[in-house]
Amino acid sequence: MDLQPHAATPDIPETSDELASQAGLERMFSPQSIAVVGASEASLGSVVFQNLHRDFPGRLYPVNQRRAEVHGVAAYPTVDDLPEAVDMAVILTPAATVPDIVERCAARGIGGAVVPSAGFAEAGPEGRAWQQRMTDIALSYAFPIVGPNCNGFYNNQGRVAATFAFPADSDRPKMGPAAVVSQSGGFGSYILLKAIAGGLHVGWYLSTGNEADLNVARGLQYLIEQPEVRVMLTFLEAVRSPEVFLNVAARAAELGKPVVAVKAGYTSEGSRAALSHTASIVGSGDVYDAICRQYGIIQAASVEQMVDFGLALQTGRTMSGRRLGVMTHSGGSGVLIADVAETVGLRVPALPGADQEHLGSLMPSFASPANPVDLTGAFNMDNFGAVFSGLAASDGVDALLPLIFHVGDREAEATKNVYAATEKALAVATTLSAPTLTEVGIPAYSDPARAVRALGAVAEFAESMRRYQRVERPAPFPDRAQKVRALLAREAGQPFVLESVAKQVLAEYGIPVSREAIADSADAAVAAARELGGPVALKALSYGLPHKSDSGALRLGLAGDEAVRRGYEEMLESIRSANPDIKVEGVLVQEMVPASVEISCGLQRDPVFGPVVAVGIGGALIEIVGGAVLLVPPFTHRMAADAVARIAGGRLRTVSRGLTDVQAELIATVMTGLGTLGLEIPEVESVDINPVRVEGSGAKAVDALLMVSA
Amino acid sequence: MDLQPHAATPDIPETSDELASQAGLERMFSPQSIAVVGASEASLGSVVFQNLHRDFPGRLYPVNQRRAEVHGVAAYPTVDDLPEAVDMAVILTPAATVPDIVERCAARGIGGAVVPSAGFAEAGPEGRAWQQRMTDIALSYAFPIVGPNCNGFYNNQGRVAATFAFPADSDRPKMGPAAVVSQSGGFGSYILLKAIAGGLHVGWYLSTGNEADLNVARGLQYLIEQPEVRVMLTFLEAVRSPEVFLNVAARAAELGKPVVAVKAGYTSEGSRAALSHTASIVGSGDVYDAICRQYGIIQAASVEQMVDFGLALQTGRTMSGRRLGVMTHSGGSGVLIADVAETVGLRVPALPGADQEHLGSLMPSFASPANPVDLTGAFNMDNFGAVFSGLAASDGVDALLPLIFHVGDREAEATKNVYAATEKALAVATTLSAPTLTEVGIPAYSDPARAVRALGAVAEFAESMRRYQRVERPAPFPDRAQKVRALLAREAGQPFVLESVAKQVLAEYGIPVSREAIADSADAAVAAARELGGPVALKALSYGLPHKSDSGALRLGLAGDEAVRRGYEEMLESIRSANPDIKVEGVLVQEMVPASVEISCGLQRDPVFGPVVAVGIGGALIEIVGGAVLLVPPFTHRMAADAVARIAGGRLRTVSRGLTDVQAELIATVMTGLGTLGLEIPEVESVDINPVRVEGSGAKAVDALLMVSA
Repeated sequence: MDLQPHAATPDIPETSDELASQAGLERMFSPQSIAVVGASEASLGSVVFQNLHRDFPGRLYPVNQRRAEVHGVAAYPTVDDLPEAVDMAVILTPAATVPDIVERCAARGIGGAVVPSAGFAEAGPEGRAWQQRMTDIALSYAFPIVGPNCNGFYNNQGRVAATFAFPADSDRPKMGPAAVVSQSGGFGSYILLKAIAGGLHVGWYLSTGNEADLNVARGLQYLIEQPEVRVMLTFLEAVRSPEVFLNVAARAAELGKPVVAVKAGYTSEGSRAALSHTASIVGSGDVYDAICRQYGIIQAASVEQMVDFGLALQTGRTMSGRRLGVMTHSGGSGVLIADVAETVGLRVPALPGADQEHLGSLMPSFASPANPVDLTGAFNMDNFGAVFSGLAASDGVDALLPLIFHVGDREAEATKNVYAATEKALAVATTLSAPTLTEVGIPAYSDPARAVRALGAVAEFAESMRRYQRVERPAPFPDRAQKVRALLAREAGQPFVLESVAKQVLAEYGIPVSREAIADSADAAVAAARELGGPVALKALSYGLPHKSDSGALRLGLAGDEAVRRGYEEMLESIRSANPDIKVEGVLVQEMVPASVEISCGLQRDPVFGPVVAVGIGGALIEIVGGAVLLVPPFTHRMAADAVARIAGGRLRTVSRGLTDVQAELIATVMTGLGTLGLEIPEVESVDINPVRVEGSGAKAVDALLMVSA
Repeated sequence: MDLQPHAATPDIPETSDELASQAGLERMFSPQSIAVVGASEASLGSVVFQNLHRDFPGRLYPVNQRRAEVHGVAAYPTVDDLPEAVDMAVILTPAATVPDIVERCAARGIGGAVVPSAGFAEAGPEGRAWQQRMTDIALSYAFPIVGPNCNGFYNNQGRVAATFAFPADSDRPKMGPAAVVSQSGGFGSYILLKAIAGGLHVGWYLSTGNEADLNVARGLQYLIEQPEVRVMLTFLEAVRSPEVFLNVAARAAELGKPVVAVKAGYTSEGSRAALSHTASIVGSGDVYDAICRQYGIIQAASVEQMVDFGLALQTGRTMSGRRLGVMTHSGGSGVLIADVAETVGLRVPALPGADQEHLGSLMPSFASPANPVDLTGAFNMDNFGAVFSGLAASDGVDALLPLIFHVGDREAEATKNVYAATEKALAVATTLSAPTLTEVGIPAYSDPARAVRALGAVAEFAESMRRYQRVERPAPFPDRAQKVRALLAREAGQPFVLESVAKQVLAEYGIPVSREAIADSADAAVAAARELGGPVALKALSYGLPHKSDSGALRLGLAGDEAVRRGYEEMLESIRSANPDIKVEGVLVQEMVPASVEISCGLQRDPVFGPVVAVGIGGALIEIVGGAVLLVPPFTHRMAADAVARIAGGRLRTVSRGLTDVQAELIATVMTGLGTLGLEIPEVESVDINPVRVEGSGAKAVDALLMVSA
C-alpha cells in the first residue's frame, strides 16, 4: 500500500467570490438601521413593519411613495430619500418593481435586502427574468439578498423581526440556542410555530424562499458561526450548493454543534413530487444519508421529530454511552420504553447492585429498583425526589428518562433539582405537556417513545462527534495522475476501458488486483499460464463484450498446457461464431484467485454530491442481499473499515464465515483507493469491481469495469 | 400433492369451561345494580363511588361497615346485607379482606367483582396466595373477576364508571366506537387520557391488572362482540391466553373491526425489562409480528401512534387502494408528505388530466394541481373549498390529506363539507390542533407525518381485510398420523431422527424429497447409485453426526461405480478414524438435485404461540441475508406463496435470477406440508429443511433435521 497521506483541504471551492461574505451577511442580519420598502397599514407591509417596529432597538424607516407616515413613523418616498444607507432593506412591493429597488439599494450602499414579495421564478417567465436580474445585482454588487418569495428572518438577540412568520401581536419566541432554517416560507413558519410550541428556544429563524442569492446551505453556513447558535434545525428541499452544504456539515462537526435536518424528496414518491414542485435535482437519498452519517448530521423523519430532537439537543448535554436510566409508575410502560430504546440503539441495563440497594430502600418491597425503575402505583411520592436523584447519580446510566404521568409542583420541583445536580441528558415523558419544565429548558415529551428517540438522537450525535475525524483531501500526486491519464487516453472513444487497463489504473491507487497477462495467441496464453502457475482463467478482451460471462468470453479453472490451449481456441471460436464482426483485442490470462467471500466495490458519481464509493456483498447475490454501504470521499481508512462493518446490516462481519478483521482492512484499502481515484481523476465516471475475492489474508480485484465520461 | 382440504375449526379450545361466559360478563359489564364495597369519602373508595354515583342510572349501594351513609347514600355493612344480589360489586378494601368478600359475593349470586385493591401477587407470597384464592373462587363459582390491582372499567353507553382512571369531576369521554384495553391500570389511565385528548371517542375502557380471572385477551374477546365497539386499542404485555388472543384476532378480522395493539417486550431489551417486571414469557416478537400480519392486527410503535391510528380507524372509513390525495400551501411540505407516504406503502400519484384541469382552473397559474396539490401561499382562499372538493371527487385518489396550517372557520366549514360529501378516508394535518374537527370525528394531527402514517394504517387494515381468509385447521388424517408415529417410534430416545426417516415423514405431508436409498455396503451403494442414475451423494447416517458436512460424513457428485465405491469406503474410513466409537446406521445414497436457488424451510414451536413455519434463503447464506418469513399454522397455500414473496424483503422474487412463480408455488407446498405436520403431530418439536433445492419446475428437500420432544 502506498496511498499518499491526506494533507490538503477538501475539494470545496472557496465561496467568497460567489457568495456574500460573512461580514456582509453580518451587517444585513444584525443591522443598526432598517428600511421597510412598501411599509403600509394593511397586509404584509403592515405585519412586517409592525413586527420590526415593536422590538427593533435601531433606526427604522418606512419607505412609501404615497404616505407621509406609516403607523406613526415618518415615511420616505424612495430608498434614495433615506437619511442614511441603511444596513438592511425589507422590500415588500409588487414583483415587477423589486429589481429596480434592489438595484437602487445596492447602488446606494445599503447592506442587503430581504424580499418577501412573491411573483418571481415560481410564477412564470416574466418573474423568472426579474429574479435573474436580482441574482445578477447580488453578484455584481456583492449585495446579499434573502428571497424573493420568502418570509424573511428573525434575529431574536438583535430583536430584528424582519418577517411575517408570526403576527405582530404574538409572543416572541423565547431567546435561546436554536436556529431554524427553511427554504419554504410557509412551511418555515409552520416549523417555527411548532418549535416554539414544543418548547424550543429560538435565537434565529430564516427562510430563503426562491434563493435568488442566499440559499439554505449559505444561511446555515452563516448561522453555524454565530456563538449563540448551538443547534440548527433545517428543512431541506433541493440542496442547491452541495459544496457549501458539505462545508457546513464539516464545520458543524468541528464546532460540535448539532444540525437536525428533515430532507424532502428522499424517496421515489418524494422525488417525483419534488420534481413537479421545484424542477431541480434532489440527489440520491442514499448518498445524502451517507453524508449525514459521515458528518454527524442528525436526520429526523418529520417536523415533529426535528423539534423533539432539537429540544433535547438545545440543552447542550451529551451522553458518554448508550445506557438509559428509566423510571416509571408502571412496569408495562417501562418495558415499552426499553423496547423503543433498543430500536434506536439505546440500552436499559440493570443498575449496579449498590444503586439498586439504595433505591430499593426508598421503595415498596414489590417495586423494582433494577432499571426500568418501577415505582409502582403504590409508591410513597415523598420519596420521588430521592429515587430520581439516586437514579441520576448512578454510574450505571448515561441519561435519564422518567415517565411522570402528571407533572405537578412536587414532580416539577424534584425534576428541576435533579436536572441542576446532574450533567446527564434528561428527557421527561408525560401525559400531555409540562410547560413548567420546558420553559426552563428541560425537555418534556407527550409520548415516552418520542422521549426515547430524542435521547437516541443525543447518543447518536455524541457518538458521531467521538467518531468524527477531520478528513483532508489526499495530496495531489501529479505523476500518478499523468500516468493514469496516459493509460486512459489509449481507450478514448470506447464505451468502456478494457479490463486489463482498468486493473492497471486500480493498481496505481494501491488496489490489489489479480496477476495476469495479455495473450494474442494460444501459444502466448500457454506461456503466460505457465508463468502465472496453477490453474488460470481466460477472458476475451473486446469493446463489444462488456459482460464477459454472459457472452461466452470467459473460461475458468484451466490447468495444464492442453486445457489452456483448448480453452483459448474454443473461446475465440465460440465468440466468433456468435458474432463474426466482433473484434477481440486480446485474451487476458489470469490467475484463479481463491475466495471464501466475494465483495463488490464501486465508484459512482452522484449528480449533486459527486464521487461516491459503495461497498457490498459481491457476486450474483448483491441484488438479493442489498445492504450496500456508501461513503463520500475524502474518507479515512478507518471510516472505510467502519463502512465494511456495516455491509448487509453488519451481518457480513458477524456471521461465522464472514469477513475477518484483516479482510475488512483489505477491503477498506480498496475503498480508499477508489475514493482517491474518484477525487484525482474526475473524468473517471464509474468503476465497478465485482468481485473482490477474499480468502485468508488476501484480497484481489478479479474483475473491473471502468467507464470514462465522454 | 395430496394435502387434505382444510375443513375443521382451528385448534383453539372452547373457552366456556375455563373462562367466564359472554353472558356472565355482560351482566357484570352492563349492570343494573352495583355495590361499592369500601366506598368512602376519602381516597380511591371515594373517587370510584363518586364516579359511579355521578352517572350510573341503575341502583347503587355503598357497602361500609363503619358508616351509615357515603356521600349521602345509605350504606350497608356487608354484601350480605344488600337488598339484592347486585349485578356487579366493586371491591376497594385492603387486600387481606378481599378473598372473603369475593367469596361472599359469589355465594350470594352477585354477578361479578371488580377489584382495584392492590397488594396481591405483585406484593409478595401472602398476596399471591390471596390472589390464587380469588382465581379458585372465580373458577368454582363461574364468578367473573376484574383485577385485582387494576383501575376498573368504564362503560360509556351504560354510564358505568367503575374506575378511578379519571377523577369524578372530569369531563366524560365522548361516547364513540373505540374500546381501550390495558393490563396495567396506571398506564391504562395514561393511554385513556391521551386517547381522549387526541380526539378518540371512547365507548369502553378496561384495565385487567393482575388478571386473577379476566385477562386482556378475554376482555378483548368480550368487547369485540359489542355492536357499539368498532375499533379496539390495546396495550399488551405478556399474552396470557394465546389461544383466546388468536380467537379474538380471527373474530376481529371476520367482523372487520380493527385492533390496534402496542406490545411491550418485543425487543431483547424489552424482554429483559419484562422478565424482571412480570416474570412471564413474552413470546418471540417475530412470531407475534407474523400473527399480526396474518390476522390484520395493526401494530403501533407507541401509545401516541396507537391513538393516531385509532383516530383514523374510528371513522369506519376504509381505502380501496393506496393512492393519497395531498393538498398543501407549500411545495416542500407536499414533497415531505409524499416521502413519508412511500415509507408506509402509500402513493401520491399525479391526478387524472381532467381533474388537474379542473383544479388548475381554480388556482393561480404557478400553483400545482398535479398531486401533491400545491395551492401556494398566493392562493385565493375563496376557492379553498372548491379545490378540496375537486380533489376529494377525483377517481385518482383513495384518501385525502390536506395540510391546513391554521384551521379557521372557513377551513373547518370546507373540511366538514368535503367529509360529508365523500366516503373516502380523510386526515387533516395542522399546526397544533383542530378541536372543531376532532369533536365531530374528523381525524386531525399536529404533524403531517403522523397523518400519513394513520392513513397508512387504514390502507394496511383494508388490505389485510381483502387478503384475509378464514383458515380452517386441516382435517385430521388418522392413517397418516398413525403411520408417521410408527416411523418416529423407531427413533425413540435418539437425539434426532435420522435423515432418511425424516424425509419419509416429510413425504407423508406432500413435501417433495430427493430420491434416495440406504446402503449397508459399498456394493449396495453402487447398486443404489445405478438405480438412481446420474451422479449421487453419499451421506453417513449416524445419531452421533447431526451435521454431516462438518464431520466428513458427506460425499457429493460421485459418478460411476468406481467413484461411488471409493467414496463409500473413504467416507466410512475417515469417520471411523476421527472417532472409532461412532456407530453408522447406514449410508444414504441420494440423487444429486440441481439448484439455481436454495431455500430453507423449517418448523419451530414458540413457547407462547405454538407451531411456526419459517421460510428463507437456504444454504450458508441465511445468516448473512436474514429476512426469513414466519407463518403460524393453519394457513392456506396462498398465504404461504405470499410469505415466499416476502423473503429477504421481497428481493428473492424480484431479482433477475430469483424464484419463478412456479418455484414459489412449490415452496408454498413445502410450507403448508410443514404447517400440517406441526398441527397433526405435536410431538414433532422442530424440522429444519436446509436446503430445498430449486431449479426449473422442480424443488426437492435434500437435507432435513427433525427433532421429537422428549
